[in-house]
Formats: sequence, structure tokens, C-alpha cells
Amino acid sequence: MDVNGKPYRTIWLKSDNPEIVQVIDQRFLPHQFVIEDLVTLEDVCDAIASMHVRGAGVIGASGAYGMYIASLEAKRNNISDIQSFLINASEKLKATRPTAVNLSWAVNRQLEAIIPLKDDIEAIITKTLQIANTVADEDVDFCQNIGKHGVRLIEEISQRKQGETVNILTHCNAGWLGCVDNGTATSPIYEAHRRGIKVHVWVDETRPRNQGSTLTAWELGQQGINHTIIPDNAGGHLMQHGLVDIVIVGSDRTTYTGDVANKIGTYLKAVAAKDNNVPFYVALTYSAFDWNISDGVKQIPIEQRDATEVKYIKGLHEGKIKEVLIAPENSPAANYGFDVTPARLITGLITERGICQASKEGIFSLYPEKIN
Amino acid sequence: MDVNGKPYRTIWLKSDNPEIVQVIDQRFLPHQFVIEDLVTLEDVCDAIASMHVRGAGVIGASGAYGMYIASLEAKRNNISDIQSFLINASEKLKATRPTAVNLSWAVNRQLEAIIPLKDDIEAIITKTLQIANTVADEDVDFCQNIGKHGVRLIEEISQRKQGETVNILTHCNAGWLGCVDNGTATSPIYEAHRRGIKVHVWVDETRPRNQGSTLTAWELGQQGINHTIIPDNAGGHLMQHGLVDIVIVGSDRTTYTGDVANKIGTYLKAVAAKDNNVPFYVALTYSAFDWNISDGVKQIPIEQRDATEVKYIKGLHEGKIKEVLIAPENSPAANYGFDVTPARLITGLITERGICQASKEGIFSLYPEKIN
Repeated sequence: MDVNGKPYRTIWLKSDNPEIVQVIDQRFLPHQFVIEDLVTLEDVCDAIASMHVRGAGVIGASGAYGMYIASLEAKRNNISDIQSFLINASEKLKATRPTAVNLSWAVNRQLEAIIPLKDDIEAIITKTLQIANTVADEDVDFCQNIGKHGVRLIEEISQRKQGETVNILTHCNAGWLGCVDNGTATSPIYEAHRRGIKVHVWVDETRPRNQGSTLTAWELGQQGINHTIIPDNAGGHLMQHGLVDIVIVGSDRTTYTGDVANKIGTYLKAVAAKDNNVPFYVALTYSAFDWNISDGVKQIPIEQRDATEVKYIKGLHEGKIKEVLIAPENSPAANYGFDVTPARLITGLITERGICQASKEGIFSLYPEKIN
Repeated sequence: MDVNGKPYRTIWLKSDNPEIVQVIDQRFLPHQFVIEDLVTLEDVCDAIASMHVRGAGVIGASGAYGMYIASLEAKRNNISDIQSFLINASEKLKATRPTAVNLSWAVNRQLEAIIPLKDDIEAIITKTLQIANTVADEDVDFCQNIGKHGVRLIEEISQRKQGETVNILTHCNAGWLGCVDNGTATSPIYEAHRRGIKVHVWVDETRPRNQGSTLTAWELGQQGINHTIIPDNAGGHLMQHGLVDIVIVGSDRTTYTGDVANKIGTYLKAVAAKDNNVPFYVALTYSAFDWNISDGVKQIPIEQRDATEVKYIKGLHEGKIKEVLIAPENSPAANYGFDVTPARLITGLITERGICQASKEGIFSLYPEKIN
């Protein structure tokens, strides 16, 4: 998508040196647009662990490119036991965000291709680069397909409203910054915008890490899409007053029965949407499905993060990014990363293969190969 | 309630000079405990308008003491037309927070008493002081009664849990800082604590002004009450997992049919409480009832505040209070002050007269004199 009018992905090879991977360092958004060079395996691990990049799609691609970077490093340092070095690299990469399913999936995909190539370092470099590019391209392709399927929902509302602006509410950042391009929840919105459908996005701030107000608002603004940042508290009021036509969010993990784990606060929007008959959709690619569990609320473990993310916040003060304390120093704070929205509150899932009901039947109709 | 172990109200006469009113300047909490001298009418107007004091109870009392301060000012400046001066003062005071029902109620109560006293300035000073003290004392008394009625709900849960900790969720600050003492939603909690019932309070941060994390957390901490600050997004997850026994919030305006206007985000907690069978109570004194309207969602006008409250936040950085920008400078933000929780989602109302259902029948059973 565009940044200052120029198209970008979130991860790419440096144009004048394809041995360097570049990413958008999201820690400085929306205040500064920083591109980071990833030269060593250490650089890649740090970029993932310290959340210079975040979001399933771009984390997966970073893991894949990380194995390419590790292969280059093996050559540069004349490593003798290449296989051990790369297995070790894969473990380091996977440990950076242990719960990110996409990361281990992408790294393991590289590893499987590397093992048969033994110590042929040139072949390994060629292969890992090829796979990394494929992982990135696939993510782009899947997100584009989500857009093409999801845009129909927005089109229908637009027609029903006789071309008046369609108001879409989203939570967190399931945008292109969390993928390689297009995003999941944002992809139907970008597609609608391309087709000239009038849209306006209510952007949930998404406390405590504020991915909505810092990332989603920034990327929508860069594409020239009308949007308004709202405190997470406001969505129910907007729905009560007919100001939300549809909710579209992303998902970190979805059971094969349609329960959706997503950023904390998603459930509150879903239950309010139900109370006001507002359609509530979840956009995701196949990699976010968990084919092993059936009860999201009971079975999906919810990460508890550090209290400092609630009690401190970063922002711009006189041109510099500063962190301020926004609560009593001695008060404890809890920081649950996600919550689970039961399938009964979800109108449908938008995937790269089409739209389905949030139910076992609906999901297996799109992914019949997953029926055991 | 206690501050650093010493009992305070939010507003009082200065001990060595009863012509000066003192208030806690809440703008600096929780980082600094600042007491402000209010000497002139201008001081009082500024304290209310710029939210050094906020919350229905203390705003009402400030209005009442404001008329006493204005009377002293009339004497000091040898004002000839005392009645015109005081009518003018009352208008200035009421204009500081035009939607605050308590403020105009308290100021008008003073005015009614002043008019028969004509130009007898000494009598006026005596009378306005007496009324101001009464307004403050009544607020204390009503809030205490809310505590005595509401504590029964907490006691019952404690007994059912065989003395285990009762987890209470609250939103915004309906605490003693918003009243003269005790608070509304917090009063049953303080009473439970006094009676030795084990309680723990989930404190909603309450974006965008963060009254929960800055005020409620601070006042609970000062009374030694266990509490945990949570992002507003977390409440639903906690309820799904049985971690909330009861929700108690305050109210800015309640229809005689039981619809409750309160800080934005209250409705989201109510609808989640309903979805999880968690009892949801609203604590309020009679002055928060609106006897003229029956449909809260349709009829209660919702104040829209400045977008800067969403996009900027104040906090402590290296010992100083600084304001930082936390969103893209060019992104618009919306800032709805309140939302309305329909009566159907409310388990009951806790008032100074007892607990009732959130319905016309329930409310009129406690306030029969209001039946037309």
C-alpha cells in the first residue's frame, strides 16, 4: 500500500543489495516512518521479538526471510556444519514470538527445504530466498482474495444506502502493516475504496498498545480513506445510533467451530453488535484456523502481558517520542492480550476462499480437506 | 476519605480562614496531591470550568460555596446593588458546566434564599455559608446511605463465596473525588471494606480522560483497597472467565424509566454483563434522576467533547507532567462523553433510599412523591 504516495510492502529486499532485507519499523509510527535494514540473523530476531514488525502475515514472512539471511550468514562466516547452524537459527527465530503460529510454520517450511540440500550453501541460499519470496507473495495473494470476497458485503450495504457512505468499525490493526500487503480486515475496505464505494472507518484506539490509533489510522490516512479514531468505549454508542453499518476485525486464532480469538476488546464489540443487529465479520487467512480445538473461551490460552504497557504510554512531545506514566505508580494493572468472541456472535468469516458462517459446517465447506 | 492517612472531603473551609474555600485540584492526580485555595468568584468558576473539580456531587457543592464566596466578594468590594451582583454571579457559575444538573440546582437553591434578604449582606453571607454546608453535608449523607444499602449486595456475594474475595468492576470515577465524600459507586465498596469483607476492584481505565486509572485507582489505593487497573477492553474477558462478581457504576442522568446515561463505555460493560449473567448495578442519588424523559437512548443528548482529549494524553515524565500526542496529527477523532444503558440491561439501582429495579415501578416505589 502507499506511504507518502509511494507503494510499499512491509518487508522486501533492498533494491541495491539483495543480501539485505528491509522492513518498516512500526515502533515509530505514526510519528516517524522508519525503514530498517536487517543484515544479520540477530537483526531479524530482534525485529520480531521487539516488535519492530508485528502481525501474523509479516511475522511469518520475516521468519522466512530470516532463514535466507541466516544462510547468507553461514556463507559469509564460512560455517562448516551448515545444517546445524541453520537448525540453530530456526530455533532462535521461532523463540522470538513463541505463540505466533505463522512464524514456526514459515521457518519450518524453510527447514524442510534446506535439509535435503545438505552443505550446498549456494543452493540453500537460492532456495531460501525463493521460499521467502513465495511466503510473502502468498500472503499478498490471500489478503487480496479476502478483499475481493469481503468487498461484496460493503457493496451490498452501499447499494442499500443508495450510495451513501458505508460506516465500518474495526478494532486493532488487521491492516497491511500486520501482513505483507493489503491486510485482512482492511482488505475489503481498500478494495471498496479502489472501486469508488464511499467508506468511512471508525478506528478503535485499541488500548493498551493503541494499534488502532497509531497503525490503522496511519495506514488508512496514507491511502486517503476517511476515518475517525474513537476510544474503545465509543463503539456501542455508535451502534445504538445507527452509525455503524458493519464491523470487520481480524483474528489471531479461530477454532474450527468458529470461535475467534482476537485483540482484547473484540468480544465487547461483538456483543454490542449483536444487541444492535449490526453485522459482525472476521477476516482471516487459513493459517489463523486452529483445527484442533472446538471451544475458544475454554481452550484458547490468553497471553498476559506486562502491566507497564497499561501504565505507561509513548507519544510525541516537542518533536521527540517520550514515555509518560498515566496511572498511580503503586497501582497494579492487568494486561490480557486477547479475548475470545463466541461463534454465536459472529455473522460470518471472510477468508481467502470466500465467506462462510462461523460454524464447523461453514468452515469445512470452504476447507473440505480439513475434515478428518 | 483518607489521603496519606488523613481524612479529607473534596471541598471545605480553610481552617485558619473561613473566607477561603479549599478543594483538591484533581488535574494533578494521581501524580501530585494539590490543594487549591478558592478566594474569588473567578477562582470558583475557573475550578469548575477547567475541571479542577469534577463529578456531580462536588460540582454542586462548589456551586453552593461559590455563591458564599460571591457574597464575601460583594462585601469586600462594597457592591451597592447586591442582588444584581449575586444574580450575575449565579449566572456565571451555572455557565461553567451548563449540562451539570447539580450545579444549577445548588446555585438556584442559594439564589432563592438570597432574594428575600435584599441588601443585608451580613445575613446573606451567613445564609449562603449555611446552605453551602448543608448542600455538602447532604451529599455526604446520601452517599453514606448508598453505601449502607449497596453493601448488602456485596455481603451476599461474599457469603455465597464463603468469604472469598468479591470482585467488583467499576467504570470511570463515581468515587469520593466526584462527590463530597464516600462517592456513589464506591460507597458500597468502602462500606464493605470497613466491615472487613474481602473486596478487589477491577478499575476500568476509562478512556479518553482516564478517570478510572488516575482517580479511582488513586482513591482506592489511598484507602488500602485491593484493585487492579484494566484497559476498558478487558472487562468482557474477565466476565467470561468468572472474574467479575458484580459491576457497580455511577450515573450522570437516569430516566424515570431506568435508562442510565453514564460515562462512554458503560453500555458495553452492561451488555457483556448481561451476556455473562453478571449483576449490573448503578449507584446514584435522587439528583441524578430526570423525571421528564422516558427513553434514554433517544432523548438524552450526548455531549461531544474535543478530539484533543483522544489524541493527546498527560502523564509523568522525569518527575514532570507532560502531554504527548498518541495518534497521527492529521487523523480526526471523535469524543462522545457518555452513552446510555437501557434499563433492560440493569439489575438494579442503588440510591440513598434503597435498592430498586431499573423501571418506572421500581423508581416510583422509592420516590412516590414524584408520581404525577
